[in-house]
Amino acid sequence: MIDYIKIGTATAGIKKNGTDCVVIELPTGTETAAIFTQNQYCAAPVMVAKQHLQHTTQCRALLINSGNANCGLGEQGLYVAEQSTQLTAQQLGCEAQQILTFSTGVINTELPLDKLRIGIEKCCAQLGKSTLHDAANAIMTTDTKPKYAQRSIEVDGQVMQLSGIAKGSGMIQPNMATMLAFLFTDVKLPADLLQRALQHAANCSFNRISVDGDTSTNDACTLSSIASSTVAIDSDQSPLWQPWLEALCALTTELALAIVDDGEGATKRLLIQVKQCKEEHEGLQVAYAIANSPLVKTALFAGDPNLGRIAAALGNSGIADIDWSKVNMHLDNLCIMRHGQLPTDYQEEQALKIMQQRNIELTISLGRGNQGAHVWTCDLSYDYVKINAEYRT
Amino acid sequence: MIDYIKIGTATAGIKKNGTDCVVIELPTGTETAAIFTQNQYCAAPVMVAKQHLQHTTQCRALLINSGNANCGLGEQGLYVAEQSTQLTAQQLGCEAQQILTFSTGVINTELPLDKLRIGIEKCCAQLGKSTLHDAANAIMTTDTKPKYAQRSIEVDGQVMQLSGIAKGSGMIQPNMATMLAFLFTDVKLPADLLQRALQHAANCSFNRISVDGDTSTNDACTLSSIASSTVAIDSDQSPLWQPWLEALCALTTELALAIVDDGEGATKRLLIQVKQCKEEHEGLQVAYAIANSPLVKTALFAGDPNLGRIAAALGNSGIADIDWSKVNMHLDNLCIMRHGQLPTDYQEEQALKIMQQRNIELTISLGRGNQGAHVWTCDLSYDYVKINAEYRT
Repeated sequence: MIDYIKIGTATAGIKKNGTDCVVIELPTGTETAAIFTQNQYCAAPVMVAKQHLQHTTQCRALLINSGNANCGLGEQGLYVAEQSTQLTAQQLGCEAQQILTFSTGVINTELPLDKLRIGIEKCCAQLGKSTLHDAANAIMTTDTKPKYAQRSIEVDGQVMQLSGIAKGSGMIQPNMATMLAFLFTDVKLPADLLQRALQHAANCSFNRISVDGDTSTNDACTLSSIASSTVAIDSDQSPLWQPWLEALCALTTELALAIVDDGEGATKRLLIQVKQCKEEHEGLQVAYAIANSPLVKTALFAGDPNLGRIAAALGNSGIADIDWSKVNMHLDNLCIMRHGQLPTDYQEEQALKIMQQRNIELTISLGRGNQGAHVWTCDLSYDYVKINAEYRT
Repeated sequence: MIDYIKIGTATAGIKKNGTDCVVIELPTGTETAAIFTQNQYCAAPVMVAKQHLQHTTQCRALLINSGNANCGLGEQGLYVAEQSTQLTAQQLGCEAQQILTFSTGVINTELPLDKLRIGIEKCCAQLGKSTLHDAANAIMTTDTKPKYAQRSIEVDGQVMQLSGIAKGSGMIQPNMATMLAFLFTDVKLPADLLQRALQHAANCSFNRISVDGDTSTNDACTLSSIASSTVAIDSDQSPLWQPWLEALCALTTELALAIVDDGEGATKRLLIQVKQCKEEHEGLQVAYAIANSPLVKTALFAGDPNLGRIAAALGNSGIADIDWSKVNMHLDNLCIMRHGQLPTDYQEEQALKIMQQRNIELTISLGRGNQGAHVWTCDLSYDYVKINAEYRT
């Protein structure tokens, strides 16, 4: 049980089965940073949460529902999102603008406010009785496992806690954040430093994964700094800053990898490391071209070392002047391309063995600079098609 | 039987089953225009064909093999491609540089020159005995149907013939051409006009289809102008130019749609029309974002009118300043988005009925200009995964 936040979960009947509503109460004085989807077709709760944060970053609660994304419904959607923050504020005795609301699930279908009202009331009655696991469970849609993580670190005798929940697991190529992730720490930080930390942590984790290359309409990620312990980080000069930031990145990476591993239909995880680029951006371009190639992903599913598909995806990445004589590739420690060609001593059995593993690492050196980037992805299986073809039935 | 070219097909044993080698002999004086893949990791035959065309556009034959793409093999691959043109030239009594060679199939595996030699000899012995259907059949890989087309038009009493073969059917988002397409006409055209015609025809057909968003390493498309009839088009001022060009576009569109319809695992075809854009490029960006979204493609497979996925893909297309209040969408004639929202009179049964069709038309009006673009795509089915997971087994 985490003592610095209070969680209440409930079944509102929005999702077909199981709990689908969470309220996470934050103590007075909590600072919350947030980042949101870059999808231009963003959902009503995203618009409302952005507005509320412009008014105040001292949030008192997060309200999350699963089963319905409240997206694509125009004024009606905005009304439901705004009303849900009013209802939560009434329960907690605060301003509606101190409530951030998040939704995930089917797009373009009305979110029933009457069900949500009951969910909010039930959640508030449960506050302090639900666990992080319960919260992670209530925000799932096609996820098969709840995703939550906790860390505690000690620096110079000062204990700092971090925790978080997240959900995937399709429409995943986060651009600012993953579908939904909510992070908490009992360390006090100023608002600007908190926002910087969240952006940094998302960039090493959530913003480096891709399940299917689709960016969700509801992506959101928050980080709340709860001043319940006496530990504070005032600036990036504090001796606590670096260790705390590293712990935060470790926490978000754990959650991000849980999303990849539970990607719709996923059976394998591939880490793509691109090295010796001119710029980080170039490395990301190459990594995503490979991560999102359906041909690479189906070969990964089959455990087939069809290396040509990786090279072809690199060739398609949009970098116009690749000098192939400088390109090297490794699958784990096995060289699969040397100076742009299949190594003369290449033995397919070795590559086959690696491709059968659950976790695989692909390293590509472009030989044109000293920058790099990495992306995690998963395979494309029958079950991806099944889950997404049958999603609404 | 087409009388202006001579076709010979044979079984060289490069592909597991069936004919896999074609020689198409072109009469002396034939002009050939060509366009090739933009993939930076292009195959040896593409490099050799480009070199040969720099020397002369008066080609005497096309040599095509299926089952092996001769790609990613460095000097060895170039040697095999070059040698195969030598062998063909010996058979036909011309220069090696007058032969263009094309390969399609598995990447990164050595193309056996001894088998190819036998194939070339057999094909040359067959010249004039094989049909367009035979040729289309011999260039197939995962294609389930041979793709060929013929047209004959008459303008002012002058008869003009056009014909062509093509193959798909995965790694398809052509950028200059489709995987392989070879076009022929018995009309005499100057080299520059022929190249312009080919580029134009590819841009309305092959360059407007996407099966999986992957651009092949071996894409190539040629157009040969054979002076066997007395009909000639000297310039774009000729009264024959427009009718001939339209017939060419109709021919390439027929072949391009055959590729989409036979896309790996495809069960449905979607035409995406984007209208009221600022520029054509913007329309293409939107159309491809939707065409390549795995979530849109699985919904299409399921026949599920999950309209939010289409809107979300539009939101992800990279256009930063979409004014949603001006966006309208139609599925065939049914309005599915009016001023950025689900129409109040929308009835899902109607959309469901359309989504069950074999051919579907999606029209999007962005309300920001008078340009437009279109792209054809197919759905993502279990069989796409199956075909590509089991491709090399």
